[in-house]
Amino acid sequence: MILRDPIDINGPFPRQSRRLRLGVVGGGRIAQTQAMAARLTDRWDVVAGALSSDPERTFERAADWHIDPDRAYSSFQQMAEKEEQRDDGIDAVMITTPNNMHYPAAKTFLDAGIDVICDKPLTNKVEEASLLGDAVGESGQVFAVCYTMSCYPMIRQAQEIVASGVLGRINQIHVEFMQDWMTPPDAGDASHVKWRLDPAVSGPTSCVGDIGTHAAHLAQFVSGLTLRSVRADFHVCGLPKPLEDTVFMMTEYEGGVPGTLLATRQAPGNRGGLRLRIFGSLGGLEWDMEHAEQLYLNVFGEPDQTLSRGHGHGISTQTERFVRTGRGFPEGLIEAWANLYTEFAVAVAARRDQIELPDAYLRYPNIDEGIDGVRFIDACVRSNISKNWVNL
Amino acid sequence: MILRDPIDINGPFPRQSRRLRLGVVGGGRIAQTQAMAARLTDRWDVVAGALSSDPERTFERAADWHIDPDRAYSSFQQMAEKEEQRDDGIDAVMITTPNNMHYPAAKTFLDAGIDVICDKPLTNKVEEASLLGDAVGESGQVFAVCYTMSCYPMIRQAQEIVASGVLGRINQIHVEFMQDWMTPPDAGDASHVKWRLDPAVSGPTSCVGDIGTHAAHLAQFVSGLTLRSVRADFHVCGLPKPLEDTVFMMTEYEGGVPGTLLATRQAPGNRGGLRLRIFGSLGGLEWDMEHAEQLYLNVFGEPDQTLSRGHGHGISTQTERFVRTGRGFPEGLIEAWANLYTEFAVAVAARRDQIELPDAYLRYPNIDEGIDGVRFIDACVRSNISKNWVNL
Amino acid sequence: MILRDPIDINGPFPRQSRRLRLGVVGGGRIAQTQAMAARLTDRWDVVAGALSSDPERTFERAADWHIDPDRAYSSFQQMAEKEEQRDDGIDAVMITTPNNMHYPAAKTFLDAGIDVICDKPLTNKVEEASLLGDAVGESGQVFAVCYTMSCYPMIRQAQEIVASGVLGRINQIHVEFMQDWMTPPDAGDASHVKWRLDPAVSGPTSCVGDIGTHAAHLAQFVSGLTLRSVRADFHVCGLPKPLEDTVFMMTEYEGGVPGTLLATRQAPGNRGGLRLRIFGSLGGLEWDMEHAEQLYLNVFGEPDQTLSRGHGHGISTQTERFVRTGRGFPEGLIEAWANLYTEFAVAVAARRDQIELPDAYLRYPNIDEGIDGVRFIDACVRSNISKNWVNL
Amino acid sequence: MILRDPIDINGPFPRQSRRLRLGVVGGGRIAQTQAMAARLTDRWDVVAGALSSDPERTFERAADWHIDPDRAYSSFQQMAEKEEQRDDGIDAVMITTPNNMHYPAAKTFLDAGIDVICDKPLTNKVEEASLLGDAVGESGQVFAVCYTMSCYPMIRQAQEIVASGVLGRINQIHVEFMQDWMTPPDAGDASHVKWRLDPAVSGPTSCVGDIGTHAAHLAQFVSGLTLRSVRADFHVCGLPKPLEDTVFMMTEYEGGVPGTLLATRQAPGNRGGLRLRIFGSLGGLEWDMEHAEQLYLNVFGEPDQTLSRGHGHGISTQTERFVRTGRGFPEGLIEAWANLYTEFAVAVAARRDQIELPDAYLRYPNIDEGIDGVRFIDACVRSNISKNWVNL
Repeated sequence: MILRDPIDINGPFPRQSRRLRLGVVGGGRIAQTQAMAARLTDRWDVVAGALSSDPERTFERAADWHIDPDRAYSSFQQMAEKEEQRDDGIDAVMITTPNNMHYPAAKTFLDAGIDVICDKPLTNKVEEASLLGDAVGESGQVFAVCYTMSCYPMIRQAQEIVASGVLGRINQIHVEFMQDWMTPPDAGDASHVKWRLDPAVSGPTSCVGDIGTHAAHLAQFVSGLTLRSVRADFHVCGLPKPLEDTVFMMTEYEGGVPGTLLATRQAPGNRGGLRLRIFGSLGGLEWDMEHAEQLYLNVFGEPDQTLSRGHGHGISTQTERFVRTGRGFPEGLIEAWANLYTEFAVAVAARRDQIELPDAYLRYPNIDEGIDGVRFIDACVRSNISKNWVNL
Repeated sequence: MILRDPIDINGPFPRQSRRLRLGVVGGGRIAQTQAMAARLTDRWDVVAGALSSDPERTFERAADWHIDPDRAYSSFQQMAEKEEQRDDGIDAVMITTPNNMHYPAAKTFLDAGIDVICDKPLTNKVEEASLLGDAVGESGQVFAVCYTMSCYPMIRQAQEIVASGVLGRINQIHVEFMQDWMTPPDAGDASHVKWRLDPAVSGPTSCVGDIGTHAAHLAQFVSGLTLRSVRADFHVCGLPKPLEDTVFMMTEYEGGVPGTLLATRQAPGNRGGLRLRIFGSLGGLEWDMEHAEQLYLNVFGEPDQTLSRGHGHGISTQTERFVRTGRGFPEGLIEAWANLYTEFAVAVAARRDQIELPDAYLRYPNIDEGIDGVRFIDACVRSNISKNWVNL
Repeated sequence: MILRDPIDINGPFPRQSRRLRLGVVGGGRIAQTQAMAARLTDRWDVVAGALSSDPERTFERAADWHIDPDRAYSSFQQMAEKEEQRDDGIDAVMITTPNNMHYPAAKTFLDAGIDVICDKPLTNKVEEASLLGDAVGESGQVFAVCYTMSCYPMIRQAQEIVASGVLGRINQIHVEFMQDWMTPPDAGDASHVKWRLDPAVSGPTSCVGDIGTHAAHLAQFVSGLTLRSVRADFHVCGLPKPLEDTVFMMTEYEGGVPGTLLATRQAPGNRGGLRLRIFGSLGGLEWDMEHAEQLYLNVFGEPDQTLSRGHGHGISTQTERFVRTGRGFPEGLIEAWANLYTEFAVAVAARRDQIELPDAYLRYPNIDEGIDGVRFIDACVRSNISKNWVNL
Repeated sequence: MILRDPIDINGPFPRQSRRLRLGVVGGGRIAQTQAMAARLTDRWDVVAGALSSDPERTFERAADWHIDPDRAYSSFQQMAEKEEQRDDGIDAVMITTPNNMHYPAAKTFLDAGIDVICDKPLTNKVEEASLLGDAVGESGQVFAVCYTMSCYPMIRQAQEIVASGVLGRINQIHVEFMQDWMTPPDAGDASHVKWRLDPAVSGPTSCVGDIGTHAAHLAQFVSGLTLRSVRADFHVCGLPKPLEDTVFMMTEYEGGVPGTLLATRQAPGNRGGLRLRIFGSLGGLEWDMEHAEQLYLNVFGEPDQTLSRGHGHGISTQTERFVRTGRGFPEGLIEAWANLYTEFAVAVAARRDQIELPDAYLRYPNIDEGIDGVRFIDACVRSNISKNWVNL
């Protein structure tokens, strides 16, 4: 048994009798951030990696990461094959490659019986996403998709608030992800940017698949409403480029709830400008990732409320589970990643322990949400071409 | 000569040798606010009023307003006729009736040679707006339209910043006016709300003409770019009603600059949520009326700036002209109204004095902007029906 | 009867059958601000003025202010004498001279039977303050002192919150008034600054009497606790000058409640930095004049609350009485002045009408609060010399 | 060589050829937070612990921490002795016991040749602090004291801004640490609170040594000015207790710069309310830990600036070294701890590698700052008794 404690949906996450073993495919900045988060949880050891497609570079990076050179691989295929054979092989793999490699890498590790946590967008094609969905459906493997923004404590709190009915009937949903890093004329020259503008790697979109899909996921995650239809216009607001850097869309959620969704990398002064607003017949709530510890709640006719992560103070016991530092001592993105790696660890351990988890433990973004994200991108592309509403 | 001082575009507004005489058509809350502002300037005496269509009520209100009973009229027609004949007749009239009366009232006072400041939307029909435009064009009378939000000092500053080129080429314009006063189920029962939902009075729209048009004006006023085309969807987010309470639209400004515009009265937690964001190739700016004294400016690569009304500190001499209280001692909406009534007074006095004003003195929202507003509403209505882009 | 409506402590302020007549002593920027506010209320006509000690200048200014030249006086003594004799003489006088003239001017108008609204500090000497107190006590005249910051709607709301017991037993009171206008080396050269650094005019202090006394008044006004004792240190933080530009003090209120009070004009980045924090056994509240429309309330264990001026939404009916614009449409300092001029008008009219006002109408800062302010300054001076606690 | 890269004061921190081995004394919440941070850096393995004085509990906790049972010790003395003898013994120890154990534990590990990172206050007595200082001075061991708030990136940036002279001559320093967790009447019953109110464990103060000393350190760290003298008053604002829960003081820094320092645990609505304000002859800066990613800078006469952690945008290359996530993606307290553990790792590795580090690498809070903190507490105690200024 890896999980040492009983499952208590009002208590802390169960402790583990051993750390789980994590492998890494891809070795860039996002991989490093995820590794920091995984280590922070004390639930994972990072023990293997295909950290670069360049064999020399993968060994160099393995040394940086304090990974045994024996477990530094020059391809994910090799890594899957070798790790599957080891007694102490990896329990799970983190996939942080450019988009076009998500599908082959994820499929390979699933086939090797290894659980997967994969960056978004899940795949570049709807069919690939479905195939992964089928594979997970059959094997029952754990598959998380890195819609990490849904793992901020105040977002979990927001989800509970909406579900509680405090806002009444939802009437409007507005979400946006505004960034500015592509403002400088030479921003496209950087290697980590280049592939994001190359359709062969990034897929049919650039901004939509990168940050638009975060926005769409967050809106659905918190509201509990499925996005049904979009009317999207793509724009190139900066220098000419082969894919859009900006998208504006009108949206419709189940039950006919209207909304808007904006995403751009060309909005100077905006960095982590992921902002969600949900309005209902009784109240509204607002959240901004740049100030992720505050959640603004208004119940019409009452004073505005600011909810903060911490002990008591209007925060549910389930949100409390994610709390690491005292009230007013800020947590941030790495802790949100750590929340995802905690939930993922609990799920991976439970599969190994053959324990069924209650729903309250299964709120991490899963394969279905990954598939929805790919369908969202596809619908946006078709709407931008047809200049009409497109159903998902 | 009413204007006692020479016109100095870098100095304060010229003083007056006498107060101008103002008449009032309509006597509700907005009229009271405007009267406070007019008195605050010390450039106006409120001396006549058609304060209600009920003759008894107009006399009562005249007493409240300390208006001579001889100049309390039971119709605007009577007021125009009588005041035109007096030696000390009104110099100008404020029109704050429900929308459908704007045209007949404005036309009547223009015909009587009296200058006009009229609430928005200018008229309920495009043709009526054109007729007023023609009348003003022929007579050279002063005609201001109450797009008062453009009279906040920091909005004037924002206009200068954009014009200066600090933001580079404009790439995106987002504007919204979010309110929540129509949230309670019984909100529609109030008399000042009822007419706003009656197409015979409010015109073809409710929310669009009331606050959407403020948003559209502000975006154009600050960006200096004309709105060319809209793709608007109307919504009823609250209880069923005969006119929309919410509108979302995608917009295109001259030069193909894309944007969005939202307006609603059903967003709990939002009150005076008029927010403007303009992004360009070099920088961006943001403003929110609920914190009207702060203007946020980002020049990419530099620290974020917060500009505040006051002395020096990055504020232009022309913005300084509007400053009444020291830095950090807040001004608000009534002072914005007072800025409009100051500019209007200077223009009215200049016409009487036969002085030509330089452009820097003619930034108050004028008849052309009023006509544009009516065309904007009309385009929104057509887009909502056709579900297509409509040019203005 | 000047007051036309019955006194209803839950309703709006009673209307007037005529405007009251206001005279002005002093003609600088603060006088102009007060005149704007008085006019805004529509309860006052500004009809007479001793606007300068220079006879020529007083006539010039009278023309600017649209005051009849017959009622432009070259001394306050002359003004008191002439106005007392007129049938349409002034009902009240505004005194906005440098500090050393407050006493003689106020005394003169009291003797002439005219009600007074006087800038703070009330006088430069404790004995002078007492003499004014005696005069008011004997005559029953209305005497307001311009602790205008206590007239912001959210401050009135804060006062009610503390009185309601929501905060429990008060444990700490912190108040500060931080400004920066004296930062530039040449700031002392301006004429409106010079007298503030001249002990013969400004009195025994500069910063303490100018803004420290505002802070002390606000803390007592909201907390309902009398300041008993101070331990003050004066500082000159900028260039050498004959009087302090900064004061830090530890304070003790009745019941032994401890606190701090800071005031300075040398804190770059602070303008209208009047900030109040009151903490009790159950909760705390905070207010900052630069964002005067928001009041922050915390009841321990509950979400933080932000209260805003407006209709309903946690605001009392008595606070509502001060509301002129809708929720979210900001009001500011001039409206706070207008609130003071409204309360002063009601009190002046009631004296003329021989009506006794209920306590809820008598919350404007009165002669006793003015006397307390002078005693506070005196205690600070003595503490700074003795380096010990001094009782008020 | 543990440090794999050359020391480049403008580059990232040098990588390590192996992780350093960390032991833990104490096993409560703060120890867990520090362990998360140490793991996050990938520079440390937590391999040994005296996690409780109860032998059974230390084994349980070791299992939770994934520490080998062989290296779970029931006393720090045993741990020091055993680890000193191992070839793979710990490189450093984290001490997070109640205050009274800091001295004996730190002394023991220093004597065993092991580097130390110790919680504040360094000791309960001035003499003990001096003895530790002597020991470190003789041995040249690395000794960090957990004034972790000085490790937020924006605090490092603030330090550089002050050093650059942008603020001119410093004129005022205000710092406060306001919390509210001791508000509920039963707050004192919790075990982690009990010892903080017991003079035999907590030392001569409770609030002063716990959070007041953080405030004093931060003010000196950023301003570069040594605190010379204090005039402190202790208060019990909540229920009666044996030690103060609140302290207010006036302060004087070298060069006669005046200031104030407040610390309390009884200010409802304040959680991590560590706030620093420094004002100079040219400008001012402000920082609030609850919004740790923003630093407010005002240069008098220019627009207010908000500096944020990230790439370029007014942030120095040395501050950049601490950056883990993109601009606008928030970091928090655990990352500040990780910054401290990174600097500590570099220093520990450099001692093992016999490399001399440049000053820019030695900005972590060191033994001297720890000794200053104990002297500060002592001076506060004496000032509170004598009711006079006391020099440090």
